[in-house]
Parts: sequence; C-alpha cells; structure tokens
Amino acid sequence: MIRPATEADTPALLALSSDTGFFKPLEIEALAGVLNDYFASNRDDYGHRCFVWEDAGTVLGFVYHAPEEMTDRTWYLWWIAVAADRQGRGLGGKLLAFVENDVRELDGRLLVVETSDTAHYEPTRRFYLKRGFTAAANLTDFYADGDGMAVFTKRVDGATEDRGQRTEPQNHRSQG
Amino acid sequence: MIRPATEADTPALLALSSDTGFFKPLEIEALAGVLNDYFASNRDDYGHRCFVWEDAGTVLGFVYHAPEEMTDRTWYLWWIAVAADRQGRGLGGKLLAFVENDVRELDGRLLVVETSDTAHYEPTRRFYLKRGFTAAANLTDFYADGDGMAVFTKRVDGATEDRGQRTEPQNHRSQG
Repeated sequence: MIRPATEADTPALLALSSDTGFFKPLEIEALAGVLNDYFASNRDDYGHRCFVWEDAGTVLGFVYHAPEEMTDRTWYLWWIAVAADRQGRGLGGKLLAFVENDVRELDGRLLVVETSDTAHYEPTRRFYLKRGFTAAANLTDFYADGDGMAVFTKRVDGATEDRGQRTEPQNHRSQG
Repeated sequence: MIRPATEADTPALLALSSDTGFFKPLEIEALAGVLNDYFASNRDDYGHRCFVWEDAGTVLGFVYHAPEEMTDRTWYLWWIAVAADRQGRGLGGKLLAFVENDVRELDGRLLVVETSDTAHYEPTRRFYLKRGFTAAANLTDFYADGDGMAVFTKRVDGATEDRGQRTEPQNHRSQG
C-alpha cells in the first residue's frame, strides 16, 4: 500500500536508495537533508509530497515530488526508488502512476524528472519513455564531464505534448 | 564597484529587479525569500554568493550565483539584474564577467543560466550568446504553456564546450 512517509521511515528510505546502486554517496547525503527538512518543515518545502510503498511492514519504495517555484503548475519528481530486491515487478510504474495522479489532483500541469544521460541510467530513461514521458532536453556534462542531464516531461492535465498540434508560443509573461 | 551584498541592500535589490520589467511578481517574491534566507543563513545556502554593483552610494545591479548540489563543480547564475535606467551600458556584461571569474576562482567547471524562451526575453538570450554561452537546451512549456525554459551553459575551467572535440562520454558515475 502507498501511504504518506513519516520521519520514522528515514533510515529505511536512505538504506533502500543506497542499495539500488543508482545514487551516489553525495546524492544519498542530499536525500538525507531533503527528508530532514521535509519532516522538520523548517524550510520552504510547502507543497512537497513524500509517499512510501509499504508491504507487510516493510518499506519497498518511495517517491518525493514537489511543485516548482515560479512556474505555472509545473512539478518535479525529485526522487523515486524501489528496493533492489523488488525491482522489475511493476512497483516503480505503480509509484510513478501514483505521482501522476497525485499531481493531477493537485491541479498540476506538467511533471518533470531529471536523470543522467550515461549508460548506467539507460533503464531509468527507458522507464520514463515507456510510461508516456517525452525526452524533452539534454544538458551535456551537467553533473560532471561525460555525465549529462536527461530531462523527461509529461503533461498530466490532459493537454497534448505533441508540438505539431500546438499553436505558436504566446508571450503572456507578466511584464511589470 | 562590485562588493558583497548586505542585508541592507535587500529593498534596493527587490525594487531594482521589479523595475526592470523582466521579473514577474511571483519571481520578486521568490527573490525576497532567497535573499532573506541568504542573509539569515537559516537554510543550506552554503557557498551561495551575492554581489552588488554600487556607484556613488546607489546600487545599480546585482548577481546571485551558487554551486549546484549533487554536481561536480556546476554553478547556477540564479539572478542577474541591472537597474532599468542603467541598462545598455555594459554593466550587465561586467557583472557576468565578475561571476565567471568568481566561479573560476572557486574551482567551478560549468556555469548554467536559465531564462524564458518567449519573445520578451530575446535580448536576455542574445546577452548570453554574445558572451560565449552555448544555447544548451530548451524545455517547451516549462514555466507555463507557451513559456518554455532556455538553458545556457559556459565552461569556466578552460575546457572546450565543442562537442566535436570531445571523446565519448564515460560512465564514471559511482555505482555503490
């Protein structure tokens, strides 16, 4: 079942993420900071959402998503992880579908996720493409030399992401 | 002259930014939060840098840049603004050159800046291209429908950004 994360989940979430082999020590350290802030609510993380998948008392995965400041209903999926020994059984897809629904219900428009463009993350990139995300942009060498950022986006408000069907961009940015 | 910003500069920085016509009310509000945190040091903004250009006791512009978490020496130029009545005199270019030098001296590798892809920000985009930045990526509809994100990058460590001269990306992401 999916339930809101609690502070007591923190050690399990850090261990689970570390064990996947898809997060660097620096990233686990950053996750610890993010979770600490989230549960302490001592920074401007209003609107942030963290949920875990629990089965028979064991946490098997989690997601962390948040609206992006200074955007019109754009959300970021900051973290998604499934326990190493539970991967390949559709749990990641269920967690991602949960996030999409959650963001949609909160009036979200666009869901964005960033990952690495290196070979090690090819399964991650395939995961998003398979679930209807668009490979929206690539930032060469962003994380490090030879380790760029791949950005995936998905409309969650029912609008099409097909550029061919869109009209010319309108300049409606407030100018005052 | 360029000097570190102080808390007393906050009202001037907010007014100056608002007057440029290039920031939405929501963005000015976010800037107020960022500056408040920066001067209070009550969040993890270690390594953040804010400098102002002052002339005869008046603040004419400012920059705010910071290293990006979970990257190898990648920095973001979060904010750069020049007073509306002082634009077009090279002050923005001098502030940007200051940032590049500052990041280089702090062992930075890559400088990243994000702006809008709408017509109103064409001068902003030209500003970065003219100063050696690369138009690295575009994220359609990121800020809002019809208002995408344009990402510019510049190497500040002396390495070339020309993809043609680079070898194949190496997967050196730590896997444990």
